[in-house]
Amino acid sequence: MSLRLTELANLSTPSVVIDLDVARANIRRFQAYADAHGLNVRPHIKTHKLPHLAELQIEAGAVGITCQKVSEAAAMVAGSQAIRDVLITYNIVGVEKIARLAALARQVRLSVVADSPAVVAGLSEGFAAMSAPLTVLVECDTGANRCGVASPGDAAALASTIATAPGLVFGGLMTYPPAGGEAAVQRFMSEAKKLIEAKGLAVPVISSGGTPTMMQAANAPVVTEYRPGTYVYNDRSLVTRGACGWEDCALAVLTTVISVPAATRAIVDAGSKVLTSDLLGLSGYGHVLGRDDLVIDQLSEEHGRIVSNGPIDLKVGDRLFIVPNHACVVSNMVDEVYLTEADLPEPQRMPVTARGRII
Amino acid sequence: MSLRLTELANLSTPSVVIDLDVARANIRRFQAYADAHGLNVRPHIKTHKLPHLAELQIEAGAVGITCQKVSEAAAMVAGSQAIRDVLITYNIVGVEKIARLAALARQVRLSVVADSPAVVAGLSEGFAAMSAPLTVLVECDTGANRCGVASPGDAAALASTIATAPGLVFGGLMTYPPAGGEAAVQRFMSEAKKLIEAKGLAVPVISSGGTPTMMQAANAPVVTEYRPGTYVYNDRSLVTRGACGWEDCALAVLTTVISVPAATRAIVDAGSKVLTSDLLGLSGYGHVLGRDDLVIDQLSEEHGRIVSNGPIDLKVGDRLFIVPNHACVVSNMVDEVYLTEADLPEPQRMPVTARGRII
Repeated sequence: MSLRLTELANLSTPSVVIDLDVARANIRRFQAYADAHGLNVRPHIKTHKLPHLAELQIEAGAVGITCQKVSEAAAMVAGSQAIRDVLITYNIVGVEKIARLAALARQVRLSVVADSPAVVAGLSEGFAAMSAPLTVLVECDTGANRCGVASPGDAAALASTIATAPGLVFGGLMTYPPAGGEAAVQRFMSEAKKLIEAKGLAVPVISSGGTPTMMQAANAPVVTEYRPGTYVYNDRSLVTRGACGWEDCALAVLTTVISVPAATRAIVDAGSKVLTSDLLGLSGYGHVLGRDDLVIDQLSEEHGRIVSNGPIDLKVGDRLFIVPNHACVVSNMVDEVYLTEADLPEPQRMPVTARGRII
Repeated sequence: MSLRLTELANLSTPSVVIDLDVARANIRRFQAYADAHGLNVRPHIKTHKLPHLAELQIEAGAVGITCQKVSEAAAMVAGSQAIRDVLITYNIVGVEKIARLAALARQVRLSVVADSPAVVAGLSEGFAAMSAPLTVLVECDTGANRCGVASPGDAAALASTIATAPGLVFGGLMTYPPAGGEAAVQRFMSEAKKLIEAKGLAVPVISSGGTPTMMQAANAPVVTEYRPGTYVYNDRSLVTRGACGWEDCALAVLTTVISVPAATRAIVDAGSKVLTSDLLGLSGYGHVLGRDDLVIDQLSEEHGRIVSNGPIDLKVGDRLFIVPNHACVVSNMVDEVYLTEADLPEPQRMPVTARGRII
């Protein structure tokens, strides 16, 4: 994030500001890594929820996008002609949602995941009468202990269930890896692939993801596709893990000091309703750019409390950039963001198209 | 919250559901307490952000509403003719925001707070040329260590500053009390009132707030007005503190089980993008109504992980109500909520008018 505070003098606070030059560099950096290692890139758009940024990712070489919810995917597809290929990495459950999914499948190349026969049965019922089958990948639990089948054997069994279900076609394997889990991914996926191929089924896609270890993605060579999300913006959690520097953070919250009630305490107008309470294992609620000496030690809904050891050297009206702990949830708090770039004289206001699309 | 799951069979999940009968009872309960103790009620609408619920609060006897941001107040005022009196408990800083404030002051009886001469100067500059002065209360730090002047003497000095500033009129004192701090509020406010009255200034309003200790509000008899927010919905944090029971919780998130990948683990379709990561000192991210044996131990953005000691007894497609840790931040995540009541055959969809109004 470059500190172009002067250019943002007319922006009311708190506002979420995106440095497009930094975002473009982040997109290019991972695309180059993936290209060098023969990996397809399918960015998770949960981070930005902006068709415009999805277009930049696709222009850079992404094979399509990843979404988490049907309504999120529908908003993205409606927002850009360039989005032609969508993977929803989520078990879609319920007649109403599957009807939405079917409507979306008529517009773009669509795939989803499943981790149980119950989910497969629901999808099959919804797609049996469709002219084209729905591609379904098996979600695998490689150690993150969230969704996913528990073993390569279970993955193979579910692959067969999908392959024989009316209206569906087996599309491959998908996982969200555990922390530092490339070895676990490689082990699970290699074994599952072998078992599935032994049944005479092809495994066209093996999809993994996650920004924190994306630059080690090639350590699981069985993977064909990678789904980073946060990498487009980066955030304090990634800087703290050593995955990037502050200069690689493309999203920040512009905020105003509204009170300096004590020598070592200041209050800004960004609270949990913009920064969120996500800690991601950190202490404190964000990083004040250019002020390593400050700690955001407490958030109320509309107040951020900043403390210092020595005199805080802030006054009412001062404006600060805060890099949040977790960029993906901050994008989702605001109806619009402001895009800046070196060549742009004024920040450009852009609605966050898929904000709040949780259905 | 009454469990009317059957009536909500057509609702896609996750959805935020409000039991209006419970909300009405919550409103009546505190209004009765306040009436019995001669306290004015000025509910903080940050919790619901719905003009309709503000109307219920005003009909029940509230003297007006409290908002935290100018844009939030503007949305509420635009949403209901019944809202005629608004206190914004926030330092409003910056020319653009003060211009919005002036526009609002032409529509309703408006008051704000200040805790420094710098804030007072900005307000005075914006209102000096207005036909009617702006009422400004002094925000006092009675121990919460957020905003506010630090001592009764500072409060009195700032009261004088306001009283002599062009375009402003001194309106009284305001605080957000520390945990269990009625005694601290009584001590600070009595002393400040005495000092201010000694200068020949009246102190028409002394405003305190906070749901957790609202039923002890009368222990600070110097207070004339109380600003509870969360009380209208209640939440897990308040049940845990003993302030209410689960049956007094008017807001819940309706969610669907999308995976049961292990005998003691299930995943629901509500994650941090609806429940938020607010912990408020608790462990776990909400309470599954009717299932005291379950713990929501982890949230991803769109996944909630539920664990149990024994067999979890859930299957894909089951629907659950989750009472969140903190109701106020959950309202703010969704573009609409669904209102239910005993006499209503179908849930009523209602846009969350002031959602995301953080400016």
